[in-house]
Amino acid sequence: MTVHQRNLSTPIDPVKLDRLAEVAVKVGLQLAPGQDLLLTGPAAALPLVRKIAEHAYKAGAGLVTPFFSDEEMTLARYRYGHDVSFDRAAGWLYEGMAKALGSNTARLAIVGDNPMLLSNEDPAKVSRASKANSIAYQPALQKIAGFDINWNIIAYPTLSWAKQVFPGDEDDIAVQKLADAIFAASRVDNAGPIAAWAKHNAALRSRTEWLNAQRFHALHFTGPGTDLVVGLADGHEWEGGASTAKNGIICNANIPTEEVFTTPHAARVNGHVRSTKPLSYQGTLIDDIAVRFEDGKIVEAKASRGEEVLNKVLDTDEGSRRLGEVALVPHSSPISASGLLFYNTLFDENAACHIALGQCYSKCFVNGGDLTPEQIAAQGGNKSFIHIDWMIGSGEIDIDGVHTDGRRVPVFRKGEWA
Amino acid sequence: MTVHQRNLSTPIDPVKLDRLAEVAVKVGLQLAPGQDLLLTGPAAALPLVRKIAEHAYKAGAGLVTPFFSDEEMTLARYRYGHDVSFDRAAGWLYEGMAKALGSNTARLAIVGDNPMLLSNEDPAKVSRASKANSIAYQPALQKIAGFDINWNIIAYPTLSWAKQVFPGDEDDIAVQKLADAIFAASRVDNAGPIAAWAKHNAALRSRTEWLNAQRFHALHFTGPGTDLVVGLADGHEWEGGASTAKNGIICNANIPTEEVFTTPHAARVNGHVRSTKPLSYQGTLIDDIAVRFEDGKIVEAKASRGEEVLNKVLDTDEGSRRLGEVALVPHSSPISASGLLFYNTLFDENAACHIALGQCYSKCFVNGGDLTPEQIAAQGGNKSFIHIDWMIGSGEIDIDGVHTDGRRVPVFRKGEWA
Ligand SMILES: [Zn+2]
Ligand SMILES: [Zn+2]
Ligand SMILES: [Zn+2]
Ligand SMILES: [Zn+2]
Repeated sequence: MTVHQRNLSTPIDPVKLDRLAEVAVKVGLQLAPGQDLLLTGPAAALPLVRKIAEHAYKAGAGLVTPFFSDEEMTLARYRYGHDVSFDRAAGWLYEGMAKALGSNTARLAIVGDNPMLLSNEDPAKVSRASKANSIAYQPALQKIAGFDINWNIIAYPTLSWAKQVFPGDEDDIAVQKLADAIFAASRVDNAGPIAAWAKHNAALRSRTEWLNAQRFHALHFTGPGTDLVVGLADGHEWEGGASTAKNGIICNANIPTEEVFTTPHAARVNGHVRSTKPLSYQGTLIDDIAVRFEDGKIVEAKASRGEEVLNKVLDTDEGSRRLGEVALVPHSSPISASGLLFYNTLFDENAACHIALGQCYSKCFVNGGDLTPEQIAAQGGNKSFIHIDWMIGSGEIDIDGVHTDGRRVPVFRKGEWA
Repeated sequence: MTVHQRNLSTPIDPVKLDRLAEVAVKVGLQLAPGQDLLLTGPAAALPLVRKIAEHAYKAGAGLVTPFFSDEEMTLARYRYGHDVSFDRAAGWLYEGMAKALGSNTARLAIVGDNPMLLSNEDPAKVSRASKANSIAYQPALQKIAGFDINWNIIAYPTLSWAKQVFPGDEDDIAVQKLADAIFAASRVDNAGPIAAWAKHNAALRSRTEWLNAQRFHALHFTGPGTDLVVGLADGHEWEGGASTAKNGIICNANIPTEEVFTTPHAARVNGHVRSTKPLSYQGTLIDDIAVRFEDGKIVEAKASRGEEVLNKVLDTDEGSRRLGEVALVPHSSPISASGLLFYNTLFDENAACHIALGQCYSKCFVNGGDLTPEQIAAQGGNKSFIHIDWMIGSGEIDIDGVHTDGRRVPVFRKGEWA
């Protein structure tokens, strides 16, 4: 008989960590034999990265190439870097990544950095560095957003992130709590996570199939402070859970995921909307966002906190005031039920209905993989350097689907599927 | 008053570690304001990498981009990887590196991996993986070996390496001993390391100036088991200590360094030679190497240990049986005096006179930076995917410089400068 005993030397359950790595490789990526894997994450996530390498090689990976960032090195740049540093980015690296992705390399990203890392740094420098990085990252991001290859994002409970989510707890307790929350949301808290993901994917698929059959012209969100009509792009397609990349591999790009989502029409969004959870953006918490749309564009934006940063974001480029995603998540979703604010989009966007400023996913169009950027734009797909999700759902939100002829179908009532 | 107290929580002296980082940036690289820095090293060397980032940003670095390897991930490949994995390499990454170096990015490499890491793995797989990697690395290596930019190699005392050098000691003691040996050899064990390096560079320069004035046709090594005439390449130039990269920056590529070295003539090496220290090559210790040269080429090779691996190495390509470097190091060098075998070329090659199989350095020619690969070959410079130094010096070696007219000048007597 074997009893699973918790290793007391680490607050992170090694059995669940191993399961998370296995789920990343077998569900998130469905890594194909012979496929190379490019992996990014915080240096602090090394224990998970090692487990992923193990499962990837067992699954027949070609070469696993890790690329680590480090919070202390990032801070050193802000503390000691001269002015010239803040417009630099590793273009050579991102071009290389784009080349690797273009040769069918799978992509795995581990999130885990302290979301408030840069909160005490000069916002102008943060914004310059971020813009330079976004521009340099474009060639790789296009292949990822366009699902050229199978990709996946998962999370690792670093100490710095854990202390942000559980500021009142001691280090080990905070890490253990965040680890357990990540494991639960990622469906690795029980044995048989592969089967649990198959079931979850099937449930999400039944929602997207219904929405795709309805083929709504728009969604009408109403609730406290919100009366927003989000036109849907011509030929939009709802996605959720597993999806098929252009290389033919079925992957779960986000772990966890609770959302079904599609592409709004960049020119047909009207009304006002209020955020229901704070948005953590590059070290700034942006709270109580209230914006007004006219013909797809945000023409008025306020926030009780972080308003300056919000306005900087909105001014990034032409597409940053328009929507690239609308997503439905029931208020009863497990992540929402946890009551936690993770300060991280991968988790927080799966706690509530949300919209995203910026770039759309070509995947969220019928035959999206075959469309040119021009065709996507003509059908209402938005283009931008940014893609920032923020939460507009709650237990008080109603959503109607609106057909071209004006006919309305209840979609959500009081935050749940109608 | 401030007293320097050793931080008892780490066996590595933080003050000396910080000095090593400072020396890497200010002496090794002489990083120029605005210059980007590309850095590679073991994940375990993170404490040194952070210090280097700090000093680099203080010196006005553009962007510091780290790239970490990890021993456990490397082992996972050999333990679990399918056959397809062992001919793969991250070509996209090395091409990107070459591009970065082509845009004046400085290059810093930290060594620290356990030199015996792969000693229990299948030598055929090790050799395939290594060959694939060497080929992919070529575009970047050419820019480094050709000194297109300022570059530097330094060492970090990882636990796995320390246990190899000091197998009888407990973990903390082994790391402390290796750290102290690295700090001493790197001249950061006393305050004022920048001045110490200036003095050391001047001493090496007086040796290279004398050798360059002599312009020997060949060097004749004699000692136990050794009677070897190493012809020097036409227009060879002796280098040692600081050297000027093509971007105009004076850097110390190796820290530590005790050698003066130049390019042998690939077709004019004759006689036999015996190694005086074991060579640690990709996890295999090759000991008591004895080879015979005819017209530059090794025609007979034996070793008391690792002979199979040695013969594999010699068969890598056309240039792997010919010499690309000959280097002079007095037997009294501090690293030799330490009596340690580091199992790492950066240290062990600086303990004794050595020769290197494979690729030559274009830098070791008069006006080498302006020579084409064809001109270098015509002057006797060797070309290969490999560059492997092995030690032939000892306290019993005599070296004569031989002029074209046969005139002989004593260079070394009993392992010391004559
Ligand atoms: Zn979303
Ligand atoms: Zn999104
Ligand atoms: Zn050498
Ligand atoms: Zn060498």
